[in-house]
Amino acid sequence: MTKENKATVVNVELGDRSYPILIGRNLLERAGEEISNRLPGSKTVIITDETVKKLHLKTLEESFQAAGVEYSTLVVPAGEKTKRFEIFEHLCDDILALRLERGDAVVALGGGVVGDLSGFVSGVVRRGMKFVQIPTTLLAQVDSSVGGKTGINSRHGKNLLGVFHQPALVLADTSVLDTLSPRDFRAGYAEVAKYGLINDPEFFEWLESNWEGIFSGGPERDQAVAHSCRAKAAVVAADELESGNRALLNLGHTFGHSLEGAVAYETERLVHGEGVSIGMVLAHEFSEQLGLCPAEDTKRVIAHMEAVGLPTRIDQIPGQLPPIDTFMDLIAQDKKVSRGQLTFILTKGIGTSYVDKTVSAEPLRAFLEEKLGK
Amino acid sequence: MTKENKATVVNVELGDRSYPILIGRNLLERAGEEISNRLPGSKTVIITDETVKKLHLKTLEESFQAAGVEYSTLVVPAGEKTKRFEIFEHLCDDILALRLERGDAVVALGGGVVGDLSGFVSGVVRRGMKFVQIPTTLLAQVDSSVGGKTGINSRHGKNLLGVFHQPALVLADTSVLDTLSPRDFRAGYAEVAKYGLINDPEFFEWLESNWEGIFSGGPERDQAVAHSCRAKAAVVAADELESGNRALLNLGHTFGHSLEGAVAYETERLVHGEGVSIGMVLAHEFSEQLGLCPAEDTKRVIAHMEAVGLPTRIDQIPGQLPPIDTFMDLIAQDKKVSRGQLTFILTKGIGTSYVDKTVSAEPLRAFLEEKLGK
Repeated sequence: MTKENKATVVNVELGDRSYPILIGRNLLERAGEEISNRLPGSKTVIITDETVKKLHLKTLEESFQAAGVEYSTLVVPAGEKTKRFEIFEHLCDDILALRLERGDAVVALGGGVVGDLSGFVSGVVRRGMKFVQIPTTLLAQVDSSVGGKTGINSRHGKNLLGVFHQPALVLADTSVLDTLSPRDFRAGYAEVAKYGLINDPEFFEWLESNWEGIFSGGPERDQAVAHSCRAKAAVVAADELESGNRALLNLGHTFGHSLEGAVAYETERLVHGEGVSIGMVLAHEFSEQLGLCPAEDTKRVIAHMEAVGLPTRIDQIPGQLPPIDTFMDLIAQDKKVSRGQLTFILTKGIGTSYVDKTVSAEPLRAFLEEKLGK
Repeated sequence: MTKENKATVVNVELGDRSYPILIGRNLLERAGEEISNRLPGSKTVIITDETVKKLHLKTLEESFQAAGVEYSTLVVPAGEKTKRFEIFEHLCDDILALRLERGDAVVALGGGVVGDLSGFVSGVVRRGMKFVQIPTTLLAQVDSSVGGKTGINSRHGKNLLGVFHQPALVLADTSVLDTLSPRDFRAGYAEVAKYGLINDPEFFEWLESNWEGIFSGGPERDQAVAHSCRAKAAVVAADELESGNRALLNLGHTFGHSLEGAVAYETERLVHGEGVSIGMVLAHEFSEQLGLCPAEDTKRVIAHMEAVGLPTRIDQIPGQLPPIDTFMDLIAQDKKVSRGQLTFILTKGIGTSYVDKTVSAEPLRAFLEEKLGK
């Protein structure tokens, strides 16, 4: 039944909220067993979306049946628009109707949308239930599955409502990534590359040589996922509630979020990882313009993103974009604002990003105007 | 301007989430100063209800103006029904529209409803803003202002959705309690008496002799509030997330919540503290019936509750009550259920309550049937 039993374990060290991330192929088939070992006696509710349901729900449910894990299943529509208040409310209500208790678990089977939404739900029902994440996209495996950030969007912006709620267990089955579209796989890859760009130039170099193995599902994929989870876990362990250096993880994200906002989260035009890819290039270009980042490093970033097929310029986003004022508003409304001062992640070159709180609006506006005008 | 500057300080020790509770008369007039000292530079949004607005908002706003604390004000309807999803959503949206940041503060001016709702809102907007509580009822001062429990009700029960979110500061102005109706004051007093009944027989004895000073606003009132806050703070510090002995604070509450549910939270018929008063009496009577609690202790509890004018019997609740099955359902759906086993706070006498997980449905049903039949 189980094809392979090897899994890499990355421990996220957060005191009494510590948890393991298991990384490997075909973990979905062992999910029931892992959950019943780690949360003995817990009932579960699986939350998934219409797309993932068709691909992976049956495997998961069979593994729950085999391990005797009691479960119900709730299915939400696929897509970023599912991260909204109405669906959040319905899920909370459905879980209460199932009479699940604090020690029971919400199991998120899906990408970032399902994970963020389910995590928020599990964080507030009875003031916090157990939470298990089974991320089915590369983005979710290397990013949202580590760190306990959960949330939904508001008409004022992305992820503006949520809680920090750490999972009890994360199962990153790297074989489910075979079912991703090339576009979605690439989008997740932007976050993998980010860990190199933040503080790990050797990893970025390794990616430049090994990205093809990651995309084709070779052993490099598991290595890259594990390395990314370890990198994020290290940052999160040092700053769980994002009061300081955790902000480094937002490299490219302030620009990226403003681009996502500018297309009203229409994923046909731009998905999160694409926004991050363009955003990271913009962060290097802006840093270069401020005399911080060598031109050759910016060029390497652009070349690598282009090599894997990710967008690197705003003008690659199809359709009309809003005027500069809208962008400035979106940036000002980004969570990563403190006392009216913009917090930007700037860089002195590949692998030497830092948190900068001195960016003022004028040079940023001039930089963006030029980029939008192209 | 400031009539008196003395305040008792009770520190709630929760590591990096520790915070002080200031207790004293006329603290409302110093609120701006205290907030600006403790959260320098934070903007604020005051959340209050229609009733409290008329009585105390002006004093608070003037103190904010005097101290240069920037504020907006949001007003919700008074009453338990305000603790619902729709209002929660509106408040989150309003605060985002005000563009407040993570370091800014939600200031709850009101009783438990305003505190629980505002605390939940402040716990999820931008994944957690600063939170300041200015409880204006005795109940809120001695109970909900300590411990970080926040939440709203669901059609499935009370406080079923929420988060643990600790305030940065609590200001318990004991002079505002002069404006409470006798009924509301008494309701809060039930929670004061509870601290004696849980584990502090000397305090219960002191209350038996000193309750009149507490009701009339003598120095005993500040002493009782401070003692209650200290008692709760000690329990909370030992068990922040209610995994163990914090459940002791629910003495009388499983019964009480079921009574509140039975009247559909209609506060004309029953307010929380009245439910707790009857619930504590029922807990002693049930414990007595199980051979745990001496009959004279039950009598003393009843006598004291009657002396202060609190209800002690289910048949004092006006109107028709639902059948026994509804009560059993409400009790089973109470949060304090673990793996299908009822968690009850039972007692071996005044000041010797304990967490009991062995209560089974049959004797409980028989006990309640008898009480309902009267």
